[in-house]
Amino acid sequence: MTDAPMTAPGPSTATTGEILSRHLTAQAGAFLRALPQAVGEVGSRPGAVLLTSAGTSDLLRAVRRIGGVLHTFAASFEPGWAQESRTELRWLLNLLAQEPGYLRRSARLLGALDSLSAAEPDGPGMLAGHAGAPKARALLDRQLTLARTRAHSTVLQELRSARLHALADRMTLLVGEVPLRAAGGSPAADALLPQATAALTALGAGAQLLPLHRAATPYGGDGLRRLGTVPAARGVLDADAALAADDAPWHRVRILVKRARYAMEVCARPILALDELDRTLGRHQEAADAAVTAATAARTPRITPATAYVLGVVHADQRLEVESARYAFGLQWPDLVPSLAGSGTPPSHQAGGEVPPASRMA
Amino acid sequence: MTDAPMTAPGPSTATTGEILSRHLTAQAGAFLRALPQAVGEVGSRPGAVLLTSAGTSDLLRAVRRIGGVLHTFAASFEPGWAQESRTELRWLLNLLAQEPGYLRRSARLLGALDSLSAAEPDGPGMLAGHAGAPKARALLDRQLTLARTRAHSTVLQELRSARLHALADRMTLLVGEVPLRAAGGSPAADALLPQATAALTALGAGAQLLPLHRAATPYGGDGLRRLGTVPAARGVLDADAALAADDAPWHRVRILVKRARYAMEVCARPILALDELDRTLGRHQEAADAAVTAATAARTPRITPATAYVLGVVHADQRLEVESARYAFGLQWPDLVPSLAGSGTPPSHQAGGEVPPASRMA
Repeated sequence: MTDAPMTAPGPSTATTGEILSRHLTAQAGAFLRALPQAVGEVGSRPGAVLLTSAGTSDLLRAVRRIGGVLHTFAASFEPGWAQESRTELRWLLNLLAQEPGYLRRSARLLGALDSLSAAEPDGPGMLAGHAGAPKARALLDRQLTLARTRAHSTVLQELRSARLHALADRMTLLVGEVPLRAAGGSPAADALLPQATAALTALGAGAQLLPLHRAATPYGGDGLRRLGTVPAARGVLDADAALAADDAPWHRVRILVKRARYAMEVCARPILALDELDRTLGRHQEAADAAVTAATAARTPRITPATAYVLGVVHADQRLEVESARYAFGLQWPDLVPSLAGSGTPPSHQAGGEVPPASRMA
Repeated sequence: MTDAPMTAPGPSTATTGEILSRHLTAQAGAFLRALPQAVGEVGSRPGAVLLTSAGTSDLLRAVRRIGGVLHTFAASFEPGWAQESRTELRWLLNLLAQEPGYLRRSARLLGALDSLSAAEPDGPGMLAGHAGAPKARALLDRQLTLARTRAHSTVLQELRSARLHALADRMTLLVGEVPLRAAGGSPAADALLPQATAALTALGAGAQLLPLHRAATPYGGDGLRRLGTVPAARGVLDADAALAADDAPWHRVRILVKRARYAMEVCARPILALDELDRTLGRHQEAADAAVTAATAARTPRITPATAYVLGVVHADQRLEVESARYAFGLQWPDLVPSLAGSGTPPSHQAGGEVPPASRMA
């Protein structure tokens, strides 16, 4: 699980190009090892296994890291190649992430519904014994199963596509040689750390756009009432647009967190606080997506009022999860702020004590 | 607004009977001054004025205090008289509190709905522009107005009743002489403070039955999922029964807080933390009642799914308020705990610095 640079000998003498090559080579290797496994899994076992399948999750892990590194250290690579590679990796990410996403959403929503409608005397929920609960459950299950099946078919189809074979070839070439720019021979400290720090700075700027003051007090009601300001030009405002506009800056920060996280991994200076924020914002995104699913299901024609009522409660419950994740972010964020102070300052929450002092690139 | 004992000369030399008499005489006087005013308000202006009307709120204030004192210091009064008086005061309290209660519930629920469905770009809610919102609002408004009108008619009718006149006569007699037991001449320290402390101890015991560990973490989900244990003998469990069982110990603690608060006022040792807890548990109770109203409205025959969906969101929103109040209680409660340590310990959060040290009855 440890990334290559962590155990690589003497990174202090390594050049920018050497460090990036070593990292990308390792990730491309992981990609190529995971790909046939993932293809086998998707092909042989429909649906339910994908979420926990090691192949797909390893593949997604490598895809995310290669894409992030190509973005953050773009100045070090041949621009055309890096841009094309990122486009193809993003395509594969979107393709592969869908089915596990629907599975997780299904587990989240049905789990919430079961918990809300539990009628055991030792822990009933606010919908205990409600007539609408089984119907709402069946409706959500049906709609999410359908979406998941569609996503599965798409993956099955694309796994045999020329596009995927081309991407695999691209990764095979990457294992052999990383297309670096001429400046790749400069000492690592000159290029790598400033670019990684720029990723942290971008994250700091993104987080400044978040309404952290609203999330600072629990039960501020952000998730249900008083959403953020929505661009006025939007015209007639509906709840979907309002919620999407409210969530957008948080989703954006999640991407920035991931990029910063992968960049610091390349520099062999992983920041634990970034992993935590990534998890928190992952929960935020999944709850926000689940809330949309509940609201959409409530617009299904010919459902009963009881079903709709239960879906309203489930929708509110998921928006409460969104609010809870924002509150958690507000508690975690200050841990990271020292790391954003500048390129000269060592990050405060380092993991990997085995990195020798000589390897510090600041 | 200050209660009589606070400014009374030399309470250190006063006997139990003198202190109780002075307090009850002052409250009975307040009752008699407020009664005709309240009767005039209820008779002349229907409904909407009652909530803010000074007469009714002064009357309720006196009724609560007299009833609380008669309960806590029961040992000092003629038992038959005290019991009868409490019964009659409770009857008047239930009678008068209903209409303002419906008004507050209406303001709470319609305010929440307006906030949830606000479509302004600078603060939309999660139901912004939802088709069901105006219908749900009209439904709640109609049902609460009906309930309030009924309560108003009942008050109008009872204000002319022999029962109210008898209670007024009882209060007039109380201004003249408080029916004390023979022991009323003993020094105050011998009887008053132990009884007031017993009220604090009862509060402590009641609070120990609360699941404060569940309320300690924000977003623990108590309000929506994982309600408390419900007595198993209840048979088939529905959500109404589960929620009522979950709320009951909190409502009970609210009564204990009020009793302790009024008892400490008699001893001229008001505890500010009790006032805060009273307010917090008041919010808890009102949100719990409002949630029931939303759930009940959702069972109205022939409503549309969109209306039911909105009522589900409103129900969840109010249960979230319940959870928020419990969290606030968990933060406030430790402030009070030193006061519960025993009769010999002075309460930690005293107001009224003008009480001379000699008057401390411990």
